[in-house]
Amino acid sequence: MEISERASNMPQSPIRKLAKYADAAKRNGIKVYHLNIGQPDIATPACALEAVRTANKSILEYSPSQGLRSLRSKMVGYYAEYGIDLSPDEIIVTAGGSEAIQFAYMTCLNPGDEIIVTDPSYANYMAFAISCGAVVKSVKTNIEDGFRLPPMEAFEEQITNKTKAILICNPNNPTGYLYTKQEMNRLRDIVKKHNLYLISDEVYREFIYTKRPYISACHLEGIEENVILVDSVSKRYSECGIRIGALITKNKEVRQAVMKFCQARLSPPLLGQIVAEASISTPEEYMEETYDEYLSRRNFLIDGLNQIPGVYTPSPMGAFYSMVRLPVNDTDKFCQWCLTDFQYEGQTVMMAPGSGFYTNPEEGKHQVRVAYCLNKEDLAQALIVLRKALEEYQKIEQ
Amino acid sequence: MEISERASNMPQSPIRKLAKYADAAKRNGIKVYHLNIGQPDIATPACALEAVRTANKSILEYSPSQGLRSLRSKMVGYYAEYGIDLSPDEIIVTAGGSEAIQFAYMTCLNPGDEIIVTDPSYANYMAFAISCGAVVKSVKTNIEDGFRLPPMEAFEEQITNKTKAILICNPNNPTGYLYTKQEMNRLRDIVKKHNLYLISDEVYREFIYTKRPYISACHLEGIEENVILVDSVSKRYSECGIRIGALITKNKEVRQAVMKFCQARLSPPLLGQIVAEASISTPEEYMEETYDEYLSRRNFLIDGLNQIPGVYTPSPMGAFYSMVRLPVNDTDKFCQWCLTDFQYEGQTVMMAPGSGFYTNPEEGKHQVRVAYCLNKEDLAQALIVLRKALEEYQKIEQ
Repeated sequence: MEISERASNMPQSPIRKLAKYADAAKRNGIKVYHLNIGQPDIATPACALEAVRTANKSILEYSPSQGLRSLRSKMVGYYAEYGIDLSPDEIIVTAGGSEAIQFAYMTCLNPGDEIIVTDPSYANYMAFAISCGAVVKSVKTNIEDGFRLPPMEAFEEQITNKTKAILICNPNNPTGYLYTKQEMNRLRDIVKKHNLYLISDEVYREFIYTKRPYISACHLEGIEENVILVDSVSKRYSECGIRIGALITKNKEVRQAVMKFCQARLSPPLLGQIVAEASISTPEEYMEETYDEYLSRRNFLIDGLNQIPGVYTPSPMGAFYSMVRLPVNDTDKFCQWCLTDFQYEGQTVMMAPGSGFYTNPEEGKHQVRVAYCLNKEDLAQALIVLRKALEEYQKIEQ
Repeated sequence: MEISERASNMPQSPIRKLAKYADAAKRNGIKVYHLNIGQPDIATPACALEAVRTANKSILEYSPSQGLRSLRSKMVGYYAEYGIDLSPDEIIVTAGGSEAIQFAYMTCLNPGDEIIVTDPSYANYMAFAISCGAVVKSVKTNIEDGFRLPPMEAFEEQITNKTKAILICNPNNPTGYLYTKQEMNRLRDIVKKHNLYLISDEVYREFIYTKRPYISACHLEGIEENVILVDSVSKRYSECGIRIGALITKNKEVRQAVMKFCQARLSPPLLGQIVAEASISTPEEYMEETYDEYLSRRNFLIDGLNQIPGVYTPSPMGAFYSMVRLPVNDTDKFCQWCLTDFQYEGQTVMMAPGSGFYTNPEEGKHQVRVAYCLNKEDLAQALIVLRKALEEYQKIEQ
């Protein structure tokens, strides 16, 4: 009996490797500030929590494989507010954005086919590609220019006759970058020219901190059949645990193929759908408060980070992450050291090493991803601790 | 842009093809008795529904990728009552039994590897194999002898150097067969001899209507490292919609590999886990009443079916399905006709054509699968309607 090659090749993210050290640190009484996770600490909207309390179901039965019609109908209204015109039939409810990505890959990519991502990228884009036998190619984006989209030529260089899709995340996890209209149009042109799928993960659209407009892949004209939108309610309503996302496309053939995978797994989670449906009615006030909170945390954290000697991070325009360059040679080692060999007044920090976000892990050796899902008091402490950790670590490294 | 071969090859189950005809019949005011589905009509236990009402969470956050520890600990007690000795670490919570099957395939099978199933089988065993590029081989079981396990030679004939696993469902969907101790020992010997994985789907263990003992794959000695148990709370607590299952194995290497897929999809549904955890405390009375109800329905339906001229079904020993031989040449056509061209006093029946359960669809042309997830009054009506339908259809077919 052997483990499959696919399973053997599945990466284990650097964060996962660190988890055991964080657990050990906590057992030793050390307070760990989690700058590593994208689990919002903000309360789920009251109307969402109330919906599940009052659902009044006597049988928790299978929902339709495509998702509850009532949820999909309500989602149509949500997207309309962002200028995305859909019918309920064009929405397929999935178990989180994760399942939407998997289904998109399974439907669009044969084993050996290539998909182009921007580097750095959300680590699981790579993991899901391996799980379905696809090959990830990448175009580099750079911390020096805030991770903006590279020119068309960079894509052209990566495109072969095996290339089937480009995947973007906008606003971006892990960089916080928001693509400009010009950049989105560039993507449109490439996708059109080479007849590729454009898979666009836009789960952070509520969190845009610049006046630059949000351009969805669904806004691009002339590639309506190429676009597959990946979405999730996890982040915008602080309900990551309910596992409700969506795969959305105008391409009927794609939808029909995706539905075969949906039917095989029977249905998305019922209770999560009830929560998600109610969440769409979240009062504007909650959304504004949440937005203001993240904006204020972003400003505080980014300023604080850039004040630490040798540290640099561009100001993220969206989402709640930033890639940060640290004055160390190997952030995998540094992040582990913070958990195993360091403490400052009984505290330490956990960060996600950059290596996990790059197709070539070496390229992330000087970077970490931080998330600002902690309140400002904790962020303030985390900044103090990180400054001390760097001071101490630099002495050791030399 | 093309649809992947994998997606193109994914089967669409015959039931799915019929769904649109059933919808049309209902729109025409016809009452459709759903003998096709395994969606229990029995209420979810009150303690399970109560648990979600009183969960009192302010953030519906990610749960651990392996599932809540409190749930896994409680599951240990559940399995102990069936003589299955586990630790919480040996249990991985999944999004239904479906995800457990997928993860088992992804972990054990390379593209091109072979897995042996019994024929007929649950259709999605085949679908998931296609989705991960594996090849399904089968050993035949026959309605004439109640679908018992074929002799060892039948397995030996199918085993090649590509064979990595045998998959069984016990008690069986779609046949209702329960494997004897002798049959299970035979499987153990084959698995041991050829060093194969034994994937055992045992989600119907609560529903065994014979005095024959339930032999879990986990009871077999000497193949502890080979066995992967697939489970789900869906059927036993009438909560198919919550999407909570489990992949269970003593094989640490397999668990570590499976966890990589678990981490990529982040976490199983949180609210479903809360429901599942509470469900394990379901009063004995509920379990007994549910059991008695299914037993009584089984006896009623099987007797009734065998009284219809030309119809034969063996008495299922477990689960809540039976494969039924009908006196027609093509059950795909007959099942469709029942929905499109037939009614008796404003009623008709929907059944699952046998073709969807066989690796070679031709072999199921004279069979249907019926589920007894309807109350007895509805079953009585369904039997009357089916008898009439067969009478009328046989005139047409001749």
